[in-house]
Amino acid sequence: MKLSASDCPFCAGDGGQVVARDARCRVVLTDEPFLGFCRVIWNEHVAEFTDLAPADRQHCMAVVAAVEMALRTLLTPDKMNLACLGNLTPHLHWHVIPRFADDSHFPLSVWGDRQRPGAARPLPSHFVESLTAFLAERWPAPPL
Amino acid sequence: MKLSASDCPFCAGDGGQVVARDARCRVVLTDEPFLGFCRVIWNEHVAEFTDLAPADRQHCMAVVAAVEMALRTLLTPDKMNLACLGNLTPHLHWHVIPRFADDSHFPLSVWGDRQRPGAARPLPSHFVESLTAFLAERWPAPPL
Repeated sequence: MKLSASDCPFCAGDGGQVVARDARCRVVLTDEPFLGFCRVIWNEHVAEFTDLAPADRQHCMAVVAAVEMALRTLLTPDKMNLACLGNLTPHLHWHVIPRFADDSHFPLSVWGDRQRPGAARPLPSHFVESLTAFLAERWPAPPL
Repeated sequence: MKLSASDCPFCAGDGGQVVARDARCRVVLTDEPFLGFCRVIWNEHVAEFTDLAPADRQHCMAVVAAVEMALRTLLTPDKMNLACLGNLTPHLHWHVIPRFADDSHFPLSVWGDRQRPGAARPLPSHFVESLTAFLAERWPAPPL
């Protein structure tokens, strides 16, 4: 995939509602139709996880883990799903997706076939504020 | 998902052809219909990435990165896909999947709808031996 930075939606914009960021990456709450679906988007336009230096990979995954912990704490999902795909948008990003046994696609991946209409489950009140506060408190130290 | 260790396929067996292992995890070449599709399977029966201690998470991802680098080097895919889902088998494992623009599902995920029959592309000769040797040479030091 030869998407240049100038054509890249994750270079052109934040890619969602930013709930945390540092000099290397940001965490966004997406508008995907799955409750609490977040992404960790690396700021630099690189395609692959292993295009990052080891210290940056470590920081990236510490952020992914912090987001997973935040979503587990705030939403108590039945399972968490993590994925770094980027076939359509080859700018490094991690999907961090809370899954529920009654969601529209469970137990398939969110990229599989719909299994049912999916339970209507609202976000808890003050979810964005709680997520922001959780990540501010648990944000991993950046690599030296 | 309340799959106990006694019902778990990744507790009952290796889950594929083992090409590397240490006390914490193993790397297997799967028989999935995607060229070079590997998995990193954590040995202990835990469900979520964040069920691991931080040092174990770091080791797990260093192994995932080593496998990604091995597959990029040996197969030169158009994109790499990484995913930790476990909705059906909630025993921590990472899918490490080389993707090709002419594979059966590209640019969708391998869990999406088939796009085409998919190009027939054989594994390079001595692939298993090369993968084993690459991982033996680049295996990350386990956490202290």
